[in-house]
Amino acid sequence: MSLMELIKSHKCHGGHLNYYTHHARRTNCDMSFTLFLPPQAKTHNVPMITFLSGLTTTPENFTTKAMAYERASELGIAILNPDSSPRGDDVPDEAGISFGKGASYYMDAQTDKWRDHYQMESYIARELFGLVLSHFPVIPDRQGIMGHSMGGYGALALSYKYAHQYQSVSALAPVSNLLDTERGREVLTKYIGTNQREWARHDPCYLVREALPEILAREILIDIGADDPYFDRLRTDLFEKAAGEAGQMLTLRVQPSYDHSYYFVQSFIQDHLDHHARFLL
Amino acid sequence: MSLMELIKSHKCHGGHLNYYTHHARRTNCDMSFTLFLPPQAKTHNVPMITFLSGLTTTPENFTTKAMAYERASELGIAILNPDSSPRGDDVPDEAGISFGKGASYYMDAQTDKWRDHYQMESYIARELFGLVLSHFPVIPDRQGIMGHSMGGYGALALSYKYAHQYQSVSALAPVSNLLDTERGREVLTKYIGTNQREWARHDPCYLVREALPEILAREILIDIGADDPYFDRLRTDLFEKAAGEAGQMLTLRVQPSYDHSYYFVQSFIQDHLDHHARFLL
Repeated sequence: MSLMELIKSHKCHGGHLNYYTHHARRTNCDMSFTLFLPPQAKTHNVPMITFLSGLTTTPENFTTKAMAYERASELGIAILNPDSSPRGDDVPDEAGISFGKGASYYMDAQTDKWRDHYQMESYIARELFGLVLSHFPVIPDRQGIMGHSMGGYGALALSYKYAHQYQSVSALAPVSNLLDTERGREVLTKYIGTNQREWARHDPCYLVREALPEILAREILIDIGADDPYFDRLRTDLFEKAAGEAGQMLTLRVQPSYDHSYYFVQSFIQDHLDHHARFLL
Repeated sequence: MSLMELIKSHKCHGGHLNYYTHHARRTNCDMSFTLFLPPQAKTHNVPMITFLSGLTTTPENFTTKAMAYERASELGIAILNPDSSPRGDDVPDEAGISFGKGASYYMDAQTDKWRDHYQMESYIARELFGLVLSHFPVIPDRQGIMGHSMGGYGALALSYKYAHQYQSVSALAPVSNLLDTERGREVLTKYIGTNQREWARHDPCYLVREALPEILAREILIDIGADDPYFDRLRTDLFEKAAGEAGQMLTLRVQPSYDHSYYFVQSFIQDHLDHHARFLL
């Protein structure tokens, strides 16, 4: 079992936001995460949503800027926010913000350079998930997954890869396709390798084609700002098309004049929490 | 008139959060501020609240972490957030976070070292106030003032010094007394000087004694966390006593187990906005 240390705790909207570190076996380094426990968690077990954040983020971004905790308190839902990559001097990195630290894409890397530490998929869906279940009053089969940008990709991908672990799914301005975009193919080449037969297993537009009927019926909510400067690269349109062809229930909303920032995120986070609540409460 | 430049704009909760810089005559340097305009400002003039933030802050703290804009949008109230001090290489400073940059205490300094730039009181209450009135659809006589920590001090002090300019007042964990505290006397000595007859003109506990009846009737809302690590230094108790003796209407709430952070601020900001709305709408 991982040793876990409480770094600090803030009372917030009647609940508590707790910061933890622990040594993670999967990523082979110390990892930090935050867990918001709503006031209801004092007396009974509560559902939980895992929020995956975007490029360059740590557990300080979502926690301080997303405005999620008021509604989470009202609904009685815990929120887990993992880090966006492994950390530490031993962990490989690259110049720039696109790959390496803060840019794991929540994958289990297969290539020589990255695989020793970049095992974020199984870290989040297995190791950290288990750690939280074993220590906190959360309900194992009332779990949602949500994310922003690169984390929106992570939420969509994990929602198919661990389809019966997550009962609710949503994304804000998600990276929606890897195979058919230049940046996506770079990500796949780096972390998964040159064997392109592996690639479709990591792309939401292809994962949706293999989904079981009960997963297709689990409606996904996606919001994206019409003035998002990355609009043309995120390719929510390709996921919408793939979802339509596969029969995936999906509400995709393009929000006029919103951008990619946390001001966009905070403007719609309550809708997303309410969406999850439909499945989790 | 000050030249003013729009740095960036984010759509947020239906309104817009705009970042500006301008050259300020009073502080003799370039200053930045943010202005949130609710959606109602597109069609008519709206009330405004000036929010003063605490030690070390810039216009990024309140904007990203206070969670004020959703309710401000609902109420139709603009929010102005000035910087917490003058800035730039020419501006005097001191080591540590207690004095100098990020620590103006929103005063007009009178001492040799500080007075050329540290004129934050008249910058906020006069120059910036006028600049905003001249450029944006805000109602001159529907103005509130609010702040956190050092900015709570600023809000209380300015609410008495410019008593008829602000129709509503509130503070979160405010520095509530200067004269009778060691740190407060250090602040006064540095910025105002050793002439102690001047000091009472900057202390909320003494300013309240001189307030006119209509100002005493303007109810103030103050919240402070019971687990605030600075609880014993903020001395809200002294302001409560002085207000009681002067007949100042005041609601002071000690919030169990909350601390001094923006998690405390975001938990009660809506109550504060609603308090201001009672006077401004």
